[in-house]
Amino acid sequence: MEVLIEAGAGTDSYYSDEAYVNAGAKIVDRETAIKQANIIAMVQNPGEETLAQLHAQQVIIGLLNPLVVTDEMSKLAQQNVSVLSFELLPRTISRAQTMDVLSSQASVAGYKAALIGSNTYPKYFPMMITAAGTVKPAKVLVLGTGVAGLQAIGTAKRLGAVVSGYDVRPASRGEVESLGATFLTTSVDNGAGAGGYARELTAEEQQKQQEELAGFIAQNDVVITTAQVPGHKPPLLVTKTSIQAAKPATVFIDLAASELGGNVAGSKPFETVTTDQQVMIIGAGDLASRVPNSASQLFAKNVQAIINYIVSEDQLNFDLTDDVLKELVATHDGEIINPRLRKTMGLETLVAAVPPTETDNVAKEEN
Amino acid sequence: MEVLIEAGAGTDSYYSDEAYVNAGAKIVDRETAIKQANIIAMVQNPGEETLAQLHAQQVIIGLLNPLVVTDEMSKLAQQNVSVLSFELLPRTISRAQTMDVLSSQASVAGYKAALIGSNTYPKYFPMMITAAGTVKPAKVLVLGTGVAGLQAIGTAKRLGAVVSGYDVRPASRGEVESLGATFLTTSVDNGAGAGGYARELTAEEQQKQQEELAGFIAQNDVVITTAQVPGHKPPLLVTKTSIQAAKPATVFIDLAASELGGNVAGSKPFETVTTDQQVMIIGAGDLASRVPNSASQLFAKNVQAIINYIVSEDQLNFDLTDDVLKELVATHDGEIINPRLRKTMGLETLVAAVPPTETDNVAKEEN
Repeated sequence: MEVLIEAGAGTDSYYSDEAYVNAGAKIVDRETAIKQANIIAMVQNPGEETLAQLHAQQVIIGLLNPLVVTDEMSKLAQQNVSVLSFELLPRTISRAQTMDVLSSQASVAGYKAALIGSNTYPKYFPMMITAAGTVKPAKVLVLGTGVAGLQAIGTAKRLGAVVSGYDVRPASRGEVESLGATFLTTSVDNGAGAGGYARELTAEEQQKQQEELAGFIAQNDVVITTAQVPGHKPPLLVTKTSIQAAKPATVFIDLAASELGGNVAGSKPFETVTTDQQVMIIGAGDLASRVPNSASQLFAKNVQAIINYIVSEDQLNFDLTDDVLKELVATHDGEIINPRLRKTMGLETLVAAVPPTETDNVAKEEN
Repeated sequence: MEVLIEAGAGTDSYYSDEAYVNAGAKIVDRETAIKQANIIAMVQNPGEETLAQLHAQQVIIGLLNPLVVTDEMSKLAQQNVSVLSFELLPRTISRAQTMDVLSSQASVAGYKAALIGSNTYPKYFPMMITAAGTVKPAKVLVLGTGVAGLQAIGTAKRLGAVVSGYDVRPASRGEVESLGATFLTTSVDNGAGAGGYARELTAEEQQKQQEELAGFIAQNDVVITTAQVPGHKPPLLVTKTSIQAAKPATVFIDLAASELGGNVAGSKPFETVTTDQQVMIIGAGDLASRVPNSASQLFAKNVQAIINYIVSEDQLNFDLTDDVLKELVATHDGEIINPRLRKTMGLETLVAAVPPTETDNVAKEEN
């Protein structure tokens, strides 16, 4: 295959145009790339203007947010562009795991969250035994132990902190404990939902959870939160009361921070708030892009796995009866393919499509 | 003893006035503290104005830079103030180690240097084996393996990097290797000086060292430098040529950065410079104060050890024949005591003083 790279595309991730050329790629301007390529990989939705420049038979791969921008998906189908979007990947199928961008980027984000925690916390993470006395290790609590949470636990453990992890899904216990951390539960310990995700809790359960978590939070120094429930706004785990009860120097890092609210009361994406009691609340946004070189490397591997999957003998080969592709593909041959997307758009189920109950499993809790 | 704390003194280190009161101390304003206390601990030289407010029989303890501000020392001696300054501590005497602020703060600085390195470097420190492929671990090189360098090595190792350490003092090999890092030498491997420090190299040796180091530097991703030679400006270890040869995304952290220059060409204290080749040069300044809570805790323990040493049965007791005190004490009873300070000030050797060759051992290479 011939590889075209948009000039400067890798600069912010420390991949130079020169390095791409040395690896056998050709540097072109954006317009040329969009015009000439058969398959176009992108990170996020590049916007209507760029998408309108695409032509029939082209394939695009990225985090394109298809369930939200359904109008755009219609247009791309009409343009006869094939759209493959990572959010639609059936993540529980094992051969799809090499393509799983949500997982690879969540892992980078979890690593970075622990680094930010250690770099912000004004004390040592590890226990230090020195001539001048012993410094106690930091206590780190991770709320939500999906891929991001587990990586945060692993990194905080590396740095010598005393780490515990909390999740409403009882199945997490083994994963958390295998990293040498303590698994915490509240009385709300039956929160597993579809596809490995947490379900939304009832208002009563949420209140109980918040109250019981308050006790854990007050005993910890750094709290990293990563809890998401697909299709809902992130659950509030750390209330204003919990923040007021936190010791000075406590650091909260909310990976679920969003415009709709996050896991920590008062967190704002890309902002750090310091309270009058010297408690820091870091609203993390897009942490993977803050380890850009490794995040890009893994993202590229995910893209490569998809290309290997859809190309055989130098020809594109879309087998839409394949369990991975019939989910991953948003549009192909002028049709909307993914069943969940069809349902969202009010379209009838395609004859070959899997029943809706199974398709609900495609999304999996991650940051 | 009664303990007075200047109001707000601990705030920036996350120690509240309330916490001091709970521990049995009394919060007072600065003037009262200076007027009433018999022993006054301070971090750095507070300036002439504050020192002029002191009165006879008071004891001050801090990093007071006595060998540089000799006029101030004369005045304090005339005021009959006793000055104990950490820079004068005979660090190789083992009972002095609990008092060693240079060591405790260097250790914090080395830890923080590795954290800053991991947080700035745009790739993973540890090797990561994921569904999307394997990410290679970062290579970290530490130049100068005193207390700060060793702590940087230990912390980078914790984070999973492949670490090597370099020093001109052959005795460092065992310490570096005991942390699981590789010890590197150049042909200039006989650089041990007095008191455990490196000596100043000849111009010819320096050039040889720089050229041979260039090879190591080009193979590494993060380079932390901590080399100091007492009484001289920091040696240049990373030349402009080495920086130009470094890979994009290489991070240099220069703990020796100073107004006189540092270990890395072009480093500036408290500033980060990014070159056209995307190489980052972080001029670290006062890193211990960026882990302020732990740094203060250890500093306080060092101060406490000195107070325990000079107070017996609630009375100040300066035994100036003691090997630790005859060095640590800059002024007492109207006299300049420390032999090195006397020499610097052109004063005759006191009858009880140790010979000058031994006093040259008091300073030890650290950040």
